[in-house]
This record gives sequence, C-alpha cells and structure tokens, in this order.
Amino acid sequence: MGDLILTTFDWVPEMPRGFVRDIRARWALEEAGLPYRVESVSFKDRDAEHFAHQPFGQVPWLTDGDISIFESGAMVLHIGELSDTLIPADPRGRNEAVEWLFAALASVEAASQPWSFYKFSGDTGETPMRGFIEGFLEARLKHMETVLAGREWLAGTFSIADILMADVLRLVDRFDGLAEYPACRAYVLRATARPAFLKAHADQMAHFAAAD
Amino acid sequence: MGDLILTTFDWVPEMPRGFVRDIRARWALEEAGLPYRVESVSFKDRDAEHFAHQPFGQVPWLTDGDISIFESGAMVLHIGELSDTLIPADPRGRNEAVEWLFAALASVEAASQPWSFYKFSGDTGETPMRGFIEGFLEARLKHMETVLAGREWLAGTFSIADILMADVLRLVDRFDGLAEYPACRAYVLRATARPAFLKAHADQMAHFAAAD
Repeated sequence: MGDLILTTFDWVPEMPRGFVRDIRARWALEEAGLPYRVESVSFKDRDAEHFAHQPFGQVPWLTDGDISIFESGAMVLHIGELSDTLIPADPRGRNEAVEWLFAALASVEAASQPWSFYKFSGDTGETPMRGFIEGFLEARLKHMETVLAGREWLAGTFSIADILMADVLRLVDRFDGLAEYPACRAYVLRATARPAFLKAHADQMAHFAAAD
Repeated sequence: MGDLILTTFDWVPEMPRGFVRDIRARWALEEAGLPYRVESVSFKDRDAEHFAHQPFGQVPWLTDGDISIFESGAMVLHIGELSDTLIPADPRGRNEAVEWLFAALASVEAASQPWSFYKFSGDTGETPMRGFIEGFLEARLKHMETVLAGREWLAGTFSIADILMADVLRLVDRFDGLAEYPACRAYVLRATARPAFLKAHADQMAHFAAAD
C-alpha cells in the first residue's frame, strides 16, 4: 500500500453537502482505520489533469501510490481489500459483500437517482416516466425491506456493502422516501450512527465549510 | 472452482431477447473458456427459492459450487477472477478493469437505463425530467467518446470492463443513441464481433426461442 490520498472538490453548493460521494471513501477509510489525506480540485474549472483521474469530470478519486481509482464502488472495494475488517474472509461472506456492493449501485441507486431528481427539481408532472421511476424504486425498496427485516448487515457483519447501500438509502430518506419501509430506515439510522460515518460526515461538512 | 451453473428465465417476451442480462455472464464465460451449463426458472411464477438467489426477483444468477452470485457486475468479476485472460495481472491494469466495470454500471447504465425507458414506452412528453435524463446520458457519452477515441479496450487489453460497457452501450445503440458518438459505436461493433459474444448471443436467442 502506498500513501492514500482522496481528492474531492474544493467547494460545492449547500444542497449536496454531506452527500458528496467522497463520503463513501472517507467512511470506508475511517472504518478501516487507514491513514489518508484529503486534497482538493477546483469545482469551477475542471482541467485535463482532472479528467485524467476521473473521466466524467466528477469527484472523488483515490490514489494509492501510483494507482489512481475512480468510481465510489471501486474505491470502497479497494479500501476493503486493504483492510481486515470490511470484507468477510470466508468465500461465501466475501461474495455477499461484493454482490451487495454492486446491488447498492446497479439495482438500488439506479432507481433512486432518477427519483431523487424529481425531488431536487420540484418536477411534479404526472407522466409515464414518473410512474416508471416511482414503481422502479418502490419495487427495489419493497425487496430491500424484506432483506433488511431479517438481518443487521448485508453480509452478516458490517462490510463495504453496507457503506454503499446505507449511503444510497440515506439520500432516499432525506426526501422521506423510506416512510413506508421501517427496516430500511432503521438500517440507515444504524449505519449512520457508527463513529466512522459520523467522523466522515463531519469532515466533509468541515471541508466544504472551510471554502465559504 | 465448483460446477458453474447460470440460471435465467425459461421465457421472456420478444422485446428483451438478446438483451437479457444473462448475456453478460454467458459472454464472460465464453471469453474465459470455462465450462458451464444454463438452467431455467419460471418467468411467470417467482417463488421463495428464486428470491433466495436473487433478492429482487430478477435474473440471472450464477452458482459456483455452493456460492450463489447475483448482480451481473459481481458475476462477471467472479468469472474474471477464475480466468487468466479477463483481468490484467498487473495492479494498474487490474484497477482499470475494475473501475471501468463499476463505471459501466454506475456512471453509464445509470443514465442509459432511464433514457431507454423513454424509448421503450414511447413517452414523448417534454418535461424537466426528460431534459435531465437526456442531458445526463449525453454528458456520459460525450466523455466516453473521448475515452474510446483513444483506446481499443478500456483496460488496455479486452477485459471484464468491456463486457459490461459494450453491453450497456449496445442497448443505447439499439435505439440509435450513438449516432453522434462514432467511437462509442465502433467500440460496440468491435466488441460484439468477438466470437464469444456471438456465441453468447446466439445461445440466449436459442434458449428463449425453445420456449415458444
């Protein structure tokens, strides 16, 4: 392992603060107890160097020595591999952590992200697309409710999967989308009460507040 | 490695044939040259056993001995780990394959999936959501165009990342969404001309045709 450096924006508007995706890597790094430092890149001017690290011009990215990693799922998986605590050691547990990590992104966030756009934008039009997106998220949450009613954490013990899934569900909860899903809501509360999350969240808020 | 069994639906309507996600695992298995067999589960009646393997009631899932894996990204990553050819051996190349695997799902398909709903449904309403989704996909494709104009495959050599990314872009191309992105289109054509894709695609078509 080389020096771990997490790069995020120097500033973002109020709305996304506390939800910028560097929190996923911060949270994993805090859970793993790994030393790291945070660097900033301009929110307003995204240069070629930025795109060399993050081809979509977003944040964050993580460097580990001479390896630079984008995509929150890939970063959290990498941090999990560096740690003894975030991925179960047995093959079945490991598989559960990895498949649920993908599920958080490809099955749940794929539905919650367009849904959250309705909330952010205030678009209230009743269209076929709205019905599709609301039905898509509802189906995912209904199944997550069944899963989370039966277990504390997705892979038996707290893992990389919970970092992603809880962060995805946390944004749904922000817009009161978990009111009918008490097990999902309890899971978010349980995950975000962890000291590592609280530290990661406070650090992100302080980082952006320092730029005002 | 245990016996590899890929489970998909016994039947699906015409529209999704050739695009059901078991093709991602089939393609990876064919590229890897690993022996596997395909089993079917009812499309119409999804029982508790189905949900035990795939908590959202979808397909496919892959079993490797006593390990059962859902999520196409997790399956393709697992198949990549069993193979010598689908994940570069050096740490930088490996990282590129893994981060682009996540990017195909969380950055590109996250945008293309709601966009494709407009195409499937024929919803033509001009709403803020439509503008958001079209802009979301356009931004992703614009950046992918830059990336793919400069390289044949995402991680240097053909890898798990190309299986996911080409399959995601292939559905965009189906609805003529790559007309302004020639490098993306050429990449899809290049990837889908591979013998392993052609075999996987023909096998999926034959599987569903056999059920009619």
